Amino acid sequence: MAYQFKIRRFVEFGDTDMAGIVYYATYYRYMDAAEHAFFRSLGLSFAPGRHSSSVGWPRVHTEADYVAPLRFGDEVEVHLLVMEKRPKALTYAFRLRRVNTPEPYEVARGKVTAVCVKVVEGKMQATRIPKVIDAKISVAPARLLQ
Amino acid sequence: MAYQFKIRRFVEFGDTDMAGIVYYATYYRYMDAAEHAFFRSLGLSFAPGRHSSSVGWPRVHTEADYVAPLRFGDEVEVHLLVMEKRPKALTYAFRLRRVNTPEPYEVARGKVTAVCVKVVEGKMQATRIPKVIDAKISVAPARLLQ
Amino acid sequence: MAYQFKIRRFVEFGDTDMAGIVYYATYYRYMDAAEHAFFRSLGLSFAPGRHSSSVGWPRVHTEADYVAPLRFGDEVEVHLLVMEKRPKALTYAFRLRRVNTPEPYEVARGKVTAVCVKVVEGKMQATRIPKVIDAKISVAPARLLQ
Amino acid sequence: MAYQFKIRRFVEFGDTDMAGIVYYATYYRYMDAAEHAFFRSLGLSFAPGRHSSSVGWPRVHTEADYVAPLRFGDEVEVHLLVMEKRPKALTYAFRLRRVNTPEPYEVARGKVTAVCVKVVEGKMQATRIPKVIDAKISVAPARLLQ
Repeated sequence: MAYQFKIRRFVEFGDTDMAGIVYYATYYRYMDAAEHAFFRSLGLSFAPGRHSSSVGWPRVHTEADYVAPLRFGDEVEVHLLVMEKRPKALTYAFRLRRVNTPEPYEVARGKVTAVCVKVVEGKMQATRIPKVIDAKISVAPARLLQ
Repeated sequence: MAYQFKIRRFVEFGDTDMAGIVYYATYYRYMDAAEHAFFRSLGLSFAPGRHSSSVGWPRVHTEADYVAPLRFGDEVEVHLLVMEKRPKALTYAFRLRRVNTPEPYEVARGKVTAVCVKVVEGKMQATRIPKVIDAKISVAPARLLQ
Repeated sequence: MAYQFKIRRFVEFGDTDMAGIVYYATYYRYMDAAEHAFFRSLGLSFAPGRHSSSVGWPRVHTEADYVAPLRFGDEVEVHLLVMEKRPKALTYAFRLRRVNTPEPYEVARGKVTAVCVKVVEGKMQATRIPKVIDAKISVAPARLLQ
Repeated sequence: MAYQFKIRRFVEFGDTDMAGIVYYATYYRYMDAAEHAFFRSLGLSFAPGRHSSSVGWPRVHTEADYVAPLRFGDEVEVHLLVMEKRPKALTYAFRLRRVNTPEPYEVARGKVTAVCVKVVEGKMQATRIPKVIDAKISVAPARLLQ
């Protein structure tokens, strides 16, 4: 069972805004990327497919605290930790650090709650996390979540 | 029959990049907004719905020439002109001008070709423009397209 | 002194994702738009200018709770309320409602804290909110913030 | 001297739109990423820095032809080729292919012209490509550009 995953990526030009730093909403895209890579690493698909059993993960809560700015050319590590697992929802904690510098430092923290849904007659409906997914994901140890 | 439409909007902070000007790909979103408002003004839906007769409009070609930069706080007028109408495709010309200034000036030109598609068994398939749409849209006079 | 502002806008095609609903990070752009329109309505500039006295507003915290999905073609009202005013920071509450429907309903709530900064030798530095801004903005009555 | 570069990346969730495919303007961000990685591979900075000699690269023309849709989970290879080099501008051709499939296929082509500028008293001014950059970049052989 997995409870964490890390990715790295470079800040792209289109990620920035006129203040010369990464536009704050872009951090959520970085967190997304880590979440999808986490699913991929477990052999799971993140997106709803055509199987009737397939599920999607719309967010019901997102938040971020910004500690230091990120700039174009910076390399950022996004560390995903599974924070909570409920029958129909997962909550992740994210730690973002700038890493292409002699002393890496934290730039942001995030928290995202995604609900497991299936689409029934065109409407999204919360549903239990399928066993194939549930069996592969566990909650991170408390010490990592501090 | 309609062959043109104009919208205005303010440049938003998230539209800019670290060069202090509007990120070039954002101009395509401005063109989108004019296209959708054009459809809405004709009582047409732009997005594929659940009717089997409904269609979508993926792009097969987009281009833009950038003449002058746009900045946060600028108000931009997007002028859509129908440039070409084929059985299964529409091509639009766009003229973008900054207008909240004593002497408005052109900032960009664009051209977009969208193909009319329906989704058949999960695959997009080019299809004739439905009559209800075709009957409402015509090509702009040549003098306007120069 | 002003403590609230409302804007309306249509959901655009590029605002959506493959789940057929508005991509969750787009809600933050809607909140931005309300914040900038609020500043504009007060005759204030949101973006740092070339005056040495000019300030910027990077976020230190953002959060959102998503109650109901938004779809392409929906018209959303973004209601900004000033929630807290500190010497060097403003916190806004946002209420987003879908309005182009017989019975408008809430789709999301948000909260954003922006710090007032000036740029000194290329580095952002928290600074007191300038008087010209401070004099125009007050905290919303508690009953509106529930 | 270098005249081409390739990157690979996975389509992210936020890259898609409600049609279930990658939003067309996102392709330009993929091209950006290749361009910046190209510069980085040459030890060059893409973004204007604080040196008076540093330059930026705003676009004056962008275009794309879309051949096949991209979907979430697809891996796309972006192949940049230097198409033209003028004293104050570079034009790139881009070939985008989906690669995580038994038989990779082209999904789009693009073309971008960027002008070399320096900022003089707050205004962008076209300028000759600095020698340090010019010396490292050449035009791709014609056979590759077909």
